[in-house]
This record gives sequence, C-alpha cells and structure tokens, in this order.
Amino acid sequence: MKKTFFLVLPFLFLWTSTTIASPVVSDKTQECLSCHAQVTPGIVADWEQSLHSRVTPEEGLEKPALKRRVSAKSVPGNLLKTVVGCAECHTLRPDTHKDTFDHNGHRIHIVVSPPDCSTCHPEEASQYSRNLMSHAYANLNDNPVYHGLVDQVNGTVTFTGGKIGITPPGEQTNADACFYCHGTVIGVSGMRERETAMGEMAFPVLSGWPNQGVGRINPDASKGSCTSCHARHQFSIKVARNPATCSQCHKGPDVPAYPVYLVSKHGNIYSSLGDTWNFTNVPWKIGADFTAPTCAVCHVSLLVAGEGDQPEVVAERSHQMNDRLAWRIFGLVYAHPHPLSPDTTVIRNKAGLPLPTELTGEPAASFLIDAGEQKNRTAKMKKICSNCHAGSWVDGHFARFEETIRVTNEMTLTATKILLSAWEKGLAKGLAQNDSIFNEPIERMWVEEWLFFANSTRFASAMAGADYGVFANGRWYLSKNIRRMHEWLDLALQRKEETKK
Amino acid sequence: MKKTFFLVLPFLFLWTSTTIASPVVSDKTQECLSCHAQVTPGIVADWEQSLHSRVTPEEGLEKPALKRRVSAKSVPGNLLKTVVGCAECHTLRPDTHKDTFDHNGHRIHIVVSPPDCSTCHPEEASQYSRNLMSHAYANLNDNPVYHGLVDQVNGTVTFTGGKIGITPPGEQTNADACFYCHGTVIGVSGMRERETAMGEMAFPVLSGWPNQGVGRINPDASKGSCTSCHARHQFSIKVARNPATCSQCHKGPDVPAYPVYLVSKHGNIYSSLGDTWNFTNVPWKIGADFTAPTCAVCHVSLLVAGEGDQPEVVAERSHQMNDRLAWRIFGLVYAHPHPLSPDTTVIRNKAGLPLPTELTGEPAASFLIDAGEQKNRTAKMKKICSNCHAGSWVDGHFARFEETIRVTNEMTLTATKILLSAWEKGLAKGLAQNDSIFNEPIERMWVEEWLFFANSTRFASAMAGADYGVFANGRWYLSKNIRRMHEWLDLALQRKEETKK
Amino acid sequence: MKKTFFLVLPFLFLWTSTTIASPVVSDKTQECLSCHAQVTPGIVADWEQSLHSRVTPEEGLEKPALKRRVSAKSVPGNLLKTVVGCAECHTLRPDTHKDTFDHNGHRIHIVVSPPDCSTCHPEEASQYSRNLMSHAYANLNDNPVYHGLVDQVNGTVTFTGGKIGITPPGEQTNADACFYCHGTVIGVSGMRERETAMGEMAFPVLSGWPNQGVGRINPDASKGSCTSCHARHQFSIKVARNPATCSQCHKGPDVPAYPVYLVSKHGNIYSSLGDTWNFTNVPWKIGADFTAPTCAVCHVSLLVAGEGDQPEVVAERSHQMNDRLAWRIFGLVYAHPHPLSPDTTVIRNKAGLPLPTELTGEPAASFLIDAGEQKNRTAKMKKICSNCHAGSWVDGHFARFEETIRVTNEMTLTATKILLSAWEKGLAKGLAQNDSIFNEPIERMWVEEWLFFANSTRFASAMAGADYGVFANGRWYLSKNIRRMHEWLDLALQRKEETKK
Repeated sequence: MKKTFFLVLPFLFLWTSTTIASPVVSDKTQECLSCHAQVTPGIVADWEQSLHSRVTPEEGLEKPALKRRVSAKSVPGNLLKTVVGCAECHTLRPDTHKDTFDHNGHRIHIVVSPPDCSTCHPEEASQYSRNLMSHAYANLNDNPVYHGLVDQVNGTVTFTGGKIGITPPGEQTNADACFYCHGTVIGVSGMRERETAMGEMAFPVLSGWPNQGVGRINPDASKGSCTSCHARHQFSIKVARNPATCSQCHKGPDVPAYPVYLVSKHGNIYSSLGDTWNFTNVPWKIGADFTAPTCAVCHVSLLVAGEGDQPEVVAERSHQMNDRLAWRIFGLVYAHPHPLSPDTTVIRNKAGLPLPTELTGEPAASFLIDAGEQKNRTAKMKKICSNCHAGSWVDGHFARFEETIRVTNEMTLTATKILLSAWEKGLAKGLAQNDSIFNEPIERMWVEEWLFFANSTRFASAMAGADYGVFANGRWYLSKNIRRMHEWLDLALQRKEETKK
Repeated sequence: MKKTFFLVLPFLFLWTSTTIASPVVSDKTQECLSCHAQVTPGIVADWEQSLHSRVTPEEGLEKPALKRRVSAKSVPGNLLKTVVGCAECHTLRPDTHKDTFDHNGHRIHIVVSPPDCSTCHPEEASQYSRNLMSHAYANLNDNPVYHGLVDQVNGTVTFTGGKIGITPPGEQTNADACFYCHGTVIGVSGMRERETAMGEMAFPVLSGWPNQGVGRINPDASKGSCTSCHARHQFSIKVARNPATCSQCHKGPDVPAYPVYLVSKHGNIYSSLGDTWNFTNVPWKIGADFTAPTCAVCHVSLLVAGEGDQPEVVAERSHQMNDRLAWRIFGLVYAHPHPLSPDTTVIRNKAGLPLPTELTGEPAASFLIDAGEQKNRTAKMKKICSNCHAGSWVDGHFARFEETIRVTNEMTLTATKILLSAWEKGLAKGLAQNDSIFNEPIERMWVEEWLFFANSTRFASAMAGADYGVFANGRWYLSKNIRRMHEWLDLALQRKEETKK
Repeated sequence: MKKTFFLVLPFLFLWTSTTIASPVVSDKTQECLSCHAQVTPGIVADWEQSLHSRVTPEEGLEKPALKRRVSAKSVPGNLLKTVVGCAECHTLRPDTHKDTFDHNGHRIHIVVSPPDCSTCHPEEASQYSRNLMSHAYANLNDNPVYHGLVDQVNGTVTFTGGKIGITPPGEQTNADACFYCHGTVIGVSGMRERETAMGEMAFPVLSGWPNQGVGRINPDASKGSCTSCHARHQFSIKVARNPATCSQCHKGPDVPAYPVYLVSKHGNIYSSLGDTWNFTNVPWKIGADFTAPTCAVCHVSLLVAGEGDQPEVVAERSHQMNDRLAWRIFGLVYAHPHPLSPDTTVIRNKAGLPLPTELTGEPAASFLIDAGEQKNRTAKMKKICSNCHAGSWVDGHFARFEETIRVTNEMTLTATKILLSAWEKGLAKGLAQNDSIFNEPIERMWVEEWLFFANSTRFASAMAGADYGVFANGRWYLSKNIRRMHEWLDLALQRKEETKK
C-alpha cells in the first residue's frame, strides 16, 4: 500500500487546533490497512479523518483533565504508543466475543462493544450502563405489556373467512422496526465461506445484524453500541453532538425531541448559526463555541463557561443522560418520575403490572426517584439554562412544564377511563378477558392518546417548541381523540342495546 | 473583569465587511458586564458577537441610506457615542415599564419592547404595528369564535359518569400552546427575593413569562416582541433572514409555510447552496448574495439588483410583511382578501359573527382590502419574482394560485354545508343551540378541512411546494375528509331514523 | 453593459479546483446579457456562478474520461469555443420547438428540453429516457386506473340536496398537484403582447407553465426536464447531488425517501458532516469527497474509490437511476420487480387491468424484470455498500429488506381482501359496479394501506431509517388501518342486516 492514506491531513489541520505529530500506526493495523484500503476504502478513509488515527492513548492521557477525551487512568502498555487503528479495537478481549474468528492469522471480532471501548473510555461506558438506553432491548422485549405492543404493531395481520388473525412478527421484522433503535441480540451461528477480492475466506454468520441500536446485546453479552451516536469509523464528536444524530430514534410522534427542537428558538438559532459554531472543542464552552444549546449541551456534554485557562464547569459529562431529568415524559402510560434502575423490567405497580404507574396514573413510587432527587436533577438542569437566561425566565419555564405534565396526565386518565368503560361493558376485550390491549381500534386510539399526543405535548413543553405541541401533533389531537373515543363508546353502547332488542 | 470579551473579534472580521473601530462601551454597561460575564456568560458572549456590541448609533447613522440598519433620523445624544449594550436597552423609558426595578443602583426592566427598540429603529417598529402579527394576542383572545377554539383545543377533558366534561385551559396551558406564538400578556405582581451568585436580590415576579410571541403584550402595554425573529442578544440578521426562524410558528399544518418552502425549488436550492450565501449584507442583493429566495426575501427584506454603487431597489424593507400579499390564505374559515386593519377583532360579517367571511364564504368586504389593492400587492410581489423568472412563468404561477384559492374555498363550502346539515337535522349541536362549534367529532373534521387541508393546499400552491399539497397534507385529505364527513352524516341520519322506530 | 458580471469569479476560484481561462462569451449571448442583466439580473447572476459560464465545450471535451462532464464525442463547431450562455441553449433546434419566437432578431425558445441538453450531454439524456421518471406524465395520465385516482384526489367535491357530487379537476388544479412532479404538457397557443422594461414585446402564450416535473412534455414533444434536479441557471452539480433536491418530489408519505434518509445513519452523518464534504468533484470519490452516501451516491453518480490517478470505478454514472434497484417498492398496489419498460402504460395484468400485479399480488411477470436481472441489480448496489460495510452487514441488510417486502405485501393483501369483501357484499361500489375504486372512505383506507403505510415501511427498510417506518408513518398504521377497515366492514354488515329486518 502506498503511503497516501494521510493525504487528507492538511485539510484536517484546518479544523483541529491540536498539533499532531506524525502518527504511529501499529504493525498489525498496517497489515489490516494493506488490504482494507482496497477492500473497504470508505472505512479506511473515514478512519483517517478520525482522531483515533492521529492521536495515541499516551498523548490522550497527557492532556489536562478538562481537555481529556480519554477517561482511563491508564491504558495497557501495548496500546499506549500507537494510534487507535483497526487491530487495536477489533482484536481486544478475543475470548469474550462469540464472533471472534481467525482472519489472516489474527483473531478478530466484528462487533466492537462498550467493554472494548472502555479500555480507554471507562467513565463513559460506566455512565452509559446507568442510562435507560443501555437496557433498551430487555426493557422492551422482556416486559410482557410492551412485548404485546410489539407483537400487535409488527405482526402480520390476516383476513380469512371474514375473520382477522395475526401472525407474530419474525426476528427480521422486529429488527427492522422497534429493535432497530432498541437494539437486537447479535447471535453467532457458525462460519460461512464467502468469495472476496482476496479469494475465498470464512466469516462468522451473525443474526440480528446489522444493528446499531442503543441497547444492542453484543456477542460478548454486553449491552449497548457506542456507534449509535459515535457513528462509524470517524467516531466524530461533531456527529455525536449534532442534533441530527439524535433524530435517528427521536423524530417519530412517540419521542419527538428532534422536530420539537427544530421549531424551538434553540433550534432556530442552531439552524441559522450552527455553521459558525465549534462542534469539536473539549470542554465545550458556552457562548464561545455555541450560542444556543443542542441535545448534547443539555443532556450529555462537559460544559464550561467563563474566561481564561480555568473556566467554571457548568455541567459534568454524562452518558447516563437522565441525571438532569426529573421526569420521564415518555409516558408509559403516564409521565412519571424517572425510574431508579435502568432495568425497568423489575418494576411492578400495585396491580401487578410491569408499568411505572397504575392504569389510573399513580406512580409505582418505590421504583422511581423521589421528590428530593427530582429537585436535584431539575436544579442541575437549571444551572445550564441560567448561563443564558435570568431566574424568572428559567423558573417560569419549568413551572409551565410541570403544569403540562399534570394536564397531559389528566387527559390520559380521561382516555383510560373511556377504555376501561368499554372493557367493562363488553364493547371491547381487555385485561380481564386476557386479550391484547393493543389490537382493537378503540385500544389503538387510547395508545395514541398517551404515546403520541400526550408525549408530543410534553416534549413541546419541555423544550419550548410549541408549534409541534398544538396543531402538528399535540393538544388538537389530545382533545379531538378523546371526543372520538367517546363517540365510539356511545355508538358501541347504542349498537349493543339495539342488538338486544 | 478581564478584557477578554472581544476575543471573538478577529473571527468576526472575516464575515463582516464593516471596518470596526475599537468599540466604546458605556460605563453603565461595563458595570452590567462586570457581573453578568460571570452570572450569565452565555448572554454576554452572544451579545459580543452582535453588531450592537461593535457599532455605535452615531456610526450607524452615518451610513448611506441603502446600507443603514438604523432608521431613526436622530438618536438621543446620550446614546450616540457608545455601542448598544445592556444598559442602553434595559434602562430605556423606565417609567413606562411595569417591570422596572432597582438593581444595583440602576432602574432596569426585564422585557425590552418595540417602543424601546424604536429609539433607533422607528420605521421597523411602525411597520410592524401594521402587521397582523403585532395584534396576534387580541386577535385570538378577544375574538369569541377563535377563543372558543382555544378553549376546546387546550381545555382539560374529563369523563365522569359516562359523560364528557371540559375545564377551560389555565393561563399556563394557553401560554404553552396557542399563545406561545401569538404572545402572552406579561404581568407583574410584585417583587420576590432570590438567592443569586451575588447574594440575595429582589426581582419582579412576572406572569406569562417567558414568551417571545409575535403579539406579546409587554409590561409597558406595547404589542409585539422583536426577539421573535431577531433572537436573543446577538440580534443576528442572519437568524432573522433564515427560514428556520420562521418555522418556530409556521411549520404546523395550519400555516405550513416552512415545510412547503423546503420542498419547493426555492427551498431545494437554499438547502443545497445556502451555505455559500451572504445572509448579512444590507441591502440584500439578488443573485450576488443569494440565488433563491428565503422567506425574508419575498416578505421582509430590502432587496436590490444590478451593478455598481447605485443598484436598483427591487423591494422596500417591510415589517408589515403582508404588503405584497393580496390574499390571506390562512382561511378563517375561507381564504379572503387581507384585512384592512391589523386589529381583526373589529370585523363582523353580515351574520354578525367576528369572521372575515360568511359561513358560506362571501367576504366581509368592508373590512378587507379591495380588488385594486389586491392588484397592487400582487404587482409588488411579481416585481420580485421577475428578477429570476420571465413574465409567462410569473403570470402562470399566479393564475394557478388563484385557481387553487377558488377550488379550496369551494371544498371548504362543501364541508361547511355538510356541517350545517348536521346541525339542522339535530345530529350535532352548533350555533343555534349556543353550543361550541369546535367540540364534536364532526365539527373537528370540519375544522381540519379548512384549517389544515385547505390551508396546506394553498400554501403549497402559493410557494410552489406541491409535494406538501397532495399526499403530505393537502388534496388527498381535502377530498377524503369530505367523504368521511358525508359518511358520518349518512350514518347519523340512519341511526336517528332507527331510534325513532 | 459594464463588464462586471464576472465579479464573483475570485470567490469561485476558492471552491473549484479547475483553472479557468478568461471565458469567451459568444456575441449572441453578449447581446442577451446586455438587456437581461437588467431585466432578469437574478438569472444572469445565477448563470455567472455556473460552470457553463466559464468552460467551453472544447475545454470540457479535453478532460480525461473520468473527469468529463460532457459525454458527447463531439460538439458542433459553432458551439465549441464559447462558453455555454443564453443563446447557446435557447436558440438550439429552433424549428423543433413550438415555443420558438422572434425576439430582438433571434429565434429563441423558452423551454429548453433534454434533446437540447443532449447536444453536449447525450449519454445522460439517453439514460434518462430509460428512467421511469421520463414517462411520468403518461404513466399517470394515460393509465385509466391511476387517472381515476387523480380525478378523485383533485376533483372538486360538492354537496347538494344531501348528495355528494364531484367535478373533475381542471388543468390548473392538476398542474398544481400530481403533475407538478410528474410533469405537465407545455402547450403553446399563440402570442401575446406584454409591456416590458424594453417596451412592448410579443411572447408565446404557454399552458401548463411553469413546470419542472420529471416527465414534462415539452413544446418539442420531448419528455423530461433536466432542470428538475439541475435547477435554474447555475446547473449546479452540488444542487443535483444534494438530498434536498430529491425532497421536492420524495418527501410525502407515498415516496418518503427523503424523511427516511434523514433519520438513517447515512442521513445523520450527512447532516452532521456534509458541510465539510466536496459536492462538486467528478468523479466522486468515496471516503475522500464524502463519508456517507446521499441519494445521488447510490442512485446516480459516477463513483470511484482508491488512490492515485487511476482510482477504481465503483459505479458508473446513471440517469436511469433504477439500474441498481431490483424492486419497485412504490407499491401499485404491491411492491414488484421493476418494470422492463419506462413506459408502464403498456402493462396489463391477467385481469386486464393496467397494473404491474394482480389485485391479489401476483406480479404481471412478462412486463417486469426477471429474477436474474433482479440479482444483477442488487449485486451492483451491494458493490457500492461494500466500500464501507463488510459482507455480513450488507447481506444482512438486504435479507431483512426482502422480508419487509414480503410482509408489507401480505399486509396489503389483507387490506385488499377486506375491500373485495366489502364490494362483494354490496357495502361499497367497486370495479364490478363500474364505480370509482378511490372515492368511498373504505377505499381511501385501502389506498392508504399500500400507498402510504406499506410504501413508507419499505422505504424505511430499504434505506435503514426505521424511525420513519414504525410510529412516524409505518407499521403502527399498517396494522391499525387493517383493524379499522375490519371494524368498518363489521359495522357495515351489521347495519345491512338491520336494514333488512
């Protein structure tokens, strides 16, 4: 291979202020590159534009605390003095990965996992393990209520002899739908020969692949995929900090953080001026690097403010992401204080259901953070807001937001009462009949009340993007849908009476 | 405070062609900055990137007419020779602002209002006072019909004893919904002590705050908030001219200007090439500064074309924004010629309703601009189009648009006739029964016909973004919805007949 | 005219690496410019920023094969040595254009057509003639089934005497809706005098104008408009390659390629890093010029990879666009192998309907590509994917996609069975009654099942943008809609029984 793969470096010097010595690539990685520069040139070129290709862990460790991107206290000696290339990650901990295979004399694995990354980034991996997202697979799949929703949404519905039937969704379908974001289980079922540019070679056969879902179950049994946000081989912090990255899973009506952000004043300013911001500085400096928050500003990044070499830390880096969030506004069925454990399968309400609230809204308090912790979290968030907003602004915003939680929960209760009435009067089949609570039209209307309209109204309130919370997907539908549910109930009752005659 | 707050200047020199002398900050503002650089560093950093922080009104007044951003003929002497900082705006006209309070020996107010801004920008403030937006609060709140819509959309719906009830929305809820864009009333109810980084201090207690709605009622009783578009303390013309800024209130299905723009050829080109355009030049030069219009190009900005120092003025700056619009395509209930007065609460149709048309579509002509004025406005708009399009193109576009107004109004009439029939036959309760005309499902269908589908179809036509006007939110629903309304009517009639038996 | 129209050139030197000699403008074009720099300054300024204004065909022909943007083997001598200006295109082939007219002593035509462009770009024009899009007008208008859909979507619905009627849409309405994208027929009906800045002049009267639809029928009877993607007079390859350009016609729920792309990881990366990519290089180099694909990467552009002067060609340029697509996932009514001919009006299924499948899903195989060609096309696409993804990733993706095609087709079949049952039982009027199959509410539900929900689910699968394919517009609705159709059927049956009593 000709030494041309650093041709992009001159350009890179323009956008990073780091002075970079000639990068030292390990012999093993050189060997990978010698074929892969031809076989997968896109991967190699992407990596060449990464910090990984230009900085050694040793250099990373030497940076002052606030500027460090490497959270490890130390890194194994054999990794210290070369840049982080193919071999450095894809040969780590070979015995723990079920997808490890022999490849040109090396034992490599396909799916790099959080424990691999934690060799240099242990704090981030540890924080992320406390993030609800890291448990997103089981939290959906192993909760019988939510699993029932998956089956009804993704299953194949049939119509035979005038009757509706349903075939549960296959693994491929689920991987293409809910588990695309929640994460699949990556299975390994032997090896398969494949014709390649370098001749015939054997590779592991993976199921649930590809996937970059946040709660992916990796072949080493670990949870999560750092690549969900730190995408592909450039591992660009600019990508991770860009709101578009969050939109991968947060654009739909169930969790519409991204569309709400875009119509908020924060989003307006980002869309107008973001091209002049610095998305790569660590720490990230309020006002100097950006003049309006993105998702990462409020929920993830290490933020500083002030002047000189010792700026004040406004917010610590967090990959838990909910440690500044008092409320889980993603209602299941109601908005509620955030769960104590990222593993929500342990939750049981008083009725014995695996839900964080009763069907009538009371929180399953012993599984959720208490009022004191809610207050702490809100205070941490307000500290960020206060860099750009006075106290009356910030307090006014949060008071309004809490009222929106109250009102949307009340609307959800109203919808639930109508559904309970339908079940009770035998107009639909629900929990008591051991029937799915997500299949009949009236049940779908109920789900939309909380999953789409209440959630959307709350996101719009939380992030001040009201345009989304009224006519786009919020209060208009929140109230209209109840009227329609009530009309449905009235008609169904009337029909039942007539049938009796 | 160390003198570091102009560190960003070298960078700013790159994107502004203005030669800037060393900025003179007033003593008062220096005093503000001495604390606020630490207390609200984001605000200070944002302001440092503004023209306000670098140009004095005196310098602004000296510019040649076309390049001026200051429309005042003169500015009070005490403001002339320092840049426009904290104190310059937040201490103006202290006796007129109910939120004025003593703060470290100064009488400052929180909410800067259009009359404050008009110290230097009187033309813009005056134009804006003729903009429908400046009256957006009362036009919604004080119109009994529209107020009824707010109540039904935002109210809390209950279900008790098999019956639906509704609690009218509270002030917080309305501020979080319709009035987020229309503007709230900012009230002042005394003072409250608050712990700050500088010790305990007293601040005014504001209601309806925060808000940056276009028709905000300020503590000095004035209307509007310049910050709706000239956001935060950078007051960036780049932000005001960016279509994303308009999306704050114009993205939903009721006034979908932004999504329509994005799928129009204008929007395509903006999305592709906008990164190379100049968004800050005044005047704004067609072809040189941009090669496709944004919202501001057609509706607001001072436009020139041609060569040399004396380019031709294509369009005068307008903060009235509708002076090139013949039609108000935001149907209430029908599209109609623009109202004469920005205060639309004065309008009464022949039936005595506060609507710009009859329920059957005839315009309340005496409150609306006449055909001559419509022609004038269209001619002004066509003058802009004609810089990039030949006459046959422009005329063809407007002929098609007028046909779309006719057809969508006709579709609205059809939906209205179905609703009137439902009321008349006692299948729903409407005006005659003194019942809300926005609560029952059939009434909601009717509202969607005009507020969502007819409006969307018209916006798509006006701005040539047809993709939005067919399957996304337009003609498909416009025709489908009428079919569903008719089916509803048929079934309701049939049910009524059966009940009689 | 002063010689100022190349003032923008210094800036252009920054973003193009081409060394540009002093451009030679033909005398004829100079004559055009002498008026039009004042009359349509936006057009002139846009053109000045184009390559057309700076490169002669002769220079274009001299480039090495891979770098050529001119595909002609030779260009007529009179066009060789001047840049491509107004006169070069608008006076070509005057006798073939019905809109040719005398204008200041020249015979010019308004609508430049693909045969005009093919003077220098014959390969592209030829490829495009095999693109379904080039036949988009007749494929919609001359297919009686689809034409019936247009009539029902765009027609004016009336309500008189309790009965629904429909007036078919006029030409203006259709041009403002479906045919905005599909293309209109540009008709010429004589000349009209018009007052201009240069005095009174006569211009052709065009119908169906303006339009830039992909299958436009031009006054020279040719099909298509290059300006659909190569917009306006800058003919910017950056515009053509930008995903926003495709959004003009591919954002709605029927063909939601753009919203799906944006939530895919590809789109996330484009949104985050696209500002650092090179959108103008020819050939387009994977990894170096961009690090994630846009629409053009996978479907249109000449792609290379590797190092040095002889990079490997990964994909040939294609304006056919479907030559790497095995499936037409835009279901009509079902997803099916791509049609053999771009003229789909020739297709007849066994039932005699002009549809590519039976109503029950079996493909009209003789009009569609066979399994071998499907395999070839998928292999070509996989070759692109393989630059950045390993074989297991790529194969896994396509296996999942094919399963999604199977499942969504099955769901479409279920919806169709319910509709057929409704027709059969006399609950709605369909084919047998010679009634529109697109007017009644149950028929509209059926259309939404395949045109909106099945299509959206497939696009989300094909392009890995699952967020759009579940709650935004996919599987949630796919399953919910069938439940609602079934409820409708049940109620309609019950009602019929009761009426009999």
